Amino acid sequence: MTDRESGDPPPGGEFGGAGEPPRDGSDPAPGGMPPGEFREWGHRMVDWVAGYLEDVGSYPVLAGVEPGRVRGRLAAEAPVRGEPMESLFRDFQSVVLPGITHWNHPAFFAYFAVSGSGPGILGELLTAALNVNAMVWKASPAATELEQLTLDWLRGFVGLPPGFNGTINDTASISTFHALAAARERGLPEARVRGLAGAPPGRVYATAETHSSILKAVHALGLGRDGLRPVATGPEREMDPVALTRAVEEDVAAGFRPLAVVATIGTTSVTAVDPAGAIADVAAAHGLWLHIDAAYAGPAAALPGMQGHFRGWERADSIVINPHKWLFTPIDCSALYVRDPGALHAAFSLTPAYLETGEEGVVHHMDQGLALGRRFRALKLWFVMRYFGQEGLRAILQHHIELARLLAGLVDAAPGWERWRPSPFSLVVLRHSPPGVPAPERDAANLAIMNRVNAAGTAFVSHTEIDGEVWLRFAIGNVHTMEAHVRGAWRALQEAAGPTRNGATEDVM
Amino acid sequence: MTDRESGDPPPGGEFGGAGEPPRDGSDPAPGGMPPGEFREWGHRMVDWVAGYLEDVGSYPVLAGVEPGRVRGRLAAEAPVRGEPMESLFRDFQSVVLPGITHWNHPAFFAYFAVSGSGPGILGELLTAALNVNAMVWKASPAATELEQLTLDWLRGFVGLPPGFNGTINDTASISTFHALAAARERGLPEARVRGLAGAPPGRVYATAETHSSILKAVHALGLGRDGLRPVATGPEREMDPVALTRAVEEDVAAGFRPLAVVATIGTTSVTAVDPAGAIADVAAAHGLWLHIDAAYAGPAAALPGMQGHFRGWERADSIVINPHKWLFTPIDCSALYVRDPGALHAAFSLTPAYLETGEEGVVHHMDQGLALGRRFRALKLWFVMRYFGQEGLRAILQHHIELARLLAGLVDAAPGWERWRPSPFSLVVLRHSPPGVPAPERDAANLAIMNRVNAAGTAFVSHTEIDGEVWLRFAIGNVHTMEAHVRGAWRALQEAAGPTRNGATEDVM
Repeated sequence: MTDRESGDPPPGGEFGGAGEPPRDGSDPAPGGMPPGEFREWGHRMVDWVAGYLEDVGSYPVLAGVEPGRVRGRLAAEAPVRGEPMESLFRDFQSVVLPGITHWNHPAFFAYFAVSGSGPGILGELLTAALNVNAMVWKASPAATELEQLTLDWLRGFVGLPPGFNGTINDTASISTFHALAAARERGLPEARVRGLAGAPPGRVYATAETHSSILKAVHALGLGRDGLRPVATGPEREMDPVALTRAVEEDVAAGFRPLAVVATIGTTSVTAVDPAGAIADVAAAHGLWLHIDAAYAGPAAALPGMQGHFRGWERADSIVINPHKWLFTPIDCSALYVRDPGALHAAFSLTPAYLETGEEGVVHHMDQGLALGRRFRALKLWFVMRYFGQEGLRAILQHHIELARLLAGLVDAAPGWERWRPSPFSLVVLRHSPPGVPAPERDAANLAIMNRVNAAGTAFVSHTEIDGEVWLRFAIGNVHTMEAHVRGAWRALQEAAGPTRNGATEDVM
Repeated sequence: MTDRESGDPPPGGEFGGAGEPPRDGSDPAPGGMPPGEFREWGHRMVDWVAGYLEDVGSYPVLAGVEPGRVRGRLAAEAPVRGEPMESLFRDFQSVVLPGITHWNHPAFFAYFAVSGSGPGILGELLTAALNVNAMVWKASPAATELEQLTLDWLRGFVGLPPGFNGTINDTASISTFHALAAARERGLPEARVRGLAGAPPGRVYATAETHSSILKAVHALGLGRDGLRPVATGPEREMDPVALTRAVEEDVAAGFRPLAVVATIGTTSVTAVDPAGAIADVAAAHGLWLHIDAAYAGPAAALPGMQGHFRGWERADSIVINPHKWLFTPIDCSALYVRDPGALHAAFSLTPAYLETGEEGVVHHMDQGLALGRRFRALKLWFVMRYFGQEGLRAILQHHIELARLLAGLVDAAPGWERWRPSPFSLVVLRHSPPGVPAPERDAANLAIMNRVNAAGTAFVSHTEIDGEVWLRFAIGNVHTMEAHVRGAWRALQEAAGPTRNGATEDVM
């Protein structure tokens, strides 16, 4: 008997809308926000957000509050009775907002930007409203299929060939953890059932420049902090493939099981580029899983002039690219590509009865990672890629790279300032380095310059250490950043250098 | 020299708003959505969301699309040129929406609900707009401090004592992984540097009813699938503490290192309650880390009548509660509490130079988990707890439990139907079980009943297996669910039982 023959009612409509009282009037639900109130506050908040995005340049970039200030102004316990939205919104503006560091600010140059954009925010609104959990296909087919589609779009955009299967995780840390879990599963299959105790010690290779999440992942996977072996780097802090080969051979001779190598295209500290092609050769020769961390720089592969930095990455076993970093998608959205989805499946799939769904030929993303629950993160990425289009996205990326080149030129022309080279993408690493100042004083002076600029609230830069010395990182990646913001922040740095500054200040504003 | 003395400009205002052209007119940024367009579409989408939430009861609960249908209707590559929002929104409505399973639907009774609510959605809108990454305190002090505050609120709400430190993760799977990583770090300290190879095999204990994420976590941590030892259960599928003691003693004698026991309060399959107090005794006697999985049921601890189920959980080393499950907060939001934050820190902290921030006495949440990047997830929880208040939240939870009791009574009174007992929270497990039908036929009949109801779109239930036999799960947890929805879905199940159904159908609508 089919459903139609059984005389079932047509889908939907039977029980009344969620916001209406039930037809029999028996029991009004005690909870839920009345539709009129949601509508009113939705509009008020959209107006607030629109105004905020227009005015964000007038906020101090870095929050100026003391530790404990935000929390100290709020009640220690949840209110017993519900409060009107008016109170919430007032506290949001008067207590929360002063404690926000404005990642949307066009002069946010610290870390790497997580740069949102209008269509991404609107996508998030719809995701929150739909509130689906895309753990299995049928729990929302559109969420699963849009995840596959948008990651195929992104794969094509950055010029990767078909044959990479994508899943979205919250962060690159989790994506990388998943990739290395798959690598461990492939390299130490005997540990699958009995665990790593009794198996040979596994080893993962990366340079000291690699993101901190690699060591976190290696440790979490049970390989110990010794499970990550640092590989020597060349002058630009790029991995030395000869040193990699030597390390692997030494380890094999010493009884280690080499599992994976992590190559980074655009390291966090100085955006160094590990040579993917040469590393892929070593990986192939020694059976290593090659994971490429392009979390930040990945989108730049869509620019013809940048493709040289990515040569060979198409030979990787896994690649991570974060649309929430440099593709104008609100945090969180990290794309993990793997060549062999069976490897992720081997590491993470175990379907219990209550999640068996019966459909053939569909992907259940819960089988490709640690998390069962999954937000509909693809929707915002789909909005961003459609709204800007490939041309629009390339134009913004190219603009950021040009701004970085402009800044590099300004730094190079400024007496007493020094720049780390090369600077292939949109990060410029620089320091105030007047002649004759010894290293410890120079380090302290640069931290002071940074703190002075950041405290003033007009720009936000961060720092790193290279060979134990302090350098400042000026990372461009915000969708709203314009030349004036870069010039202004550069001027602020020069002014903050104080008495020792040279007269070469740009005069553009 | 202080900043004020240095003559720095006052914070902000210098560079102009993000949406305005720069004052010197030099280079309009190529990207970003114009403010007017954001405003227009924000309002349109709020109106759409408001209407959707009002009308969601008129949609089929379960998406009726065939695999590949959503994807097949969309372009295979990202558009080269940007598209107007009008096109995106049209496709969202005509292509994406039919592929959505409506978790907001008041007759969504499958799995456990991830039940959002108006204030939670509005909180998500603001989170997406602010788009901060709360990896370190200064990267947005309010995000870090609100995370601590709201988790303290939640801790107090469910009656846990002070001394539990909370962090928010995306899902319970990740929270549990973190808890077990901390347990491994404490139980196998020799593995910290050298890895698990060479260390004694570690063991984690849980019943076969435990959530699938426990085995995923144990496997990912390098303990192998044998690293999880199942503990026998009593008649209600609750862990037998005597069997736990026996298992631990056997393992110690055999050279295993017992690490942790996972007790669940409200298992996924039948909401069984492991006896936390008795298990805490065993854990204390054998030095096991006690992790409590209360991802679903945790909020019920706020109800005086439910507290007996939670007795002893305050002795745990870690507890997970998901506000995105049964506390009306949009996915994702999972609260992990640990008694000793140092244990998480030992497993996950390693601060590189570019993230050193210098503040004393503040928490950097990146040190308490795998992920470096972190969304501002606390804001929506703060909105939900303030808007409803403790009284309001208790009223909704109590209402759901009463609806479950109502349904249990209806099932018990219906000839030919059977109910799994006990049913302590808001899940009712039932099956059609007319006398004389052999088990295989009964299983097939119940799957057919489920599929018929789900295909009709008027309700969505899921199934589980108990001792290899099929039962249907009817989980109540949506903020909009009313008695009429429960009665309607129960009637649909009875009707779907077809020719064998008894005449005891309720007649309420």
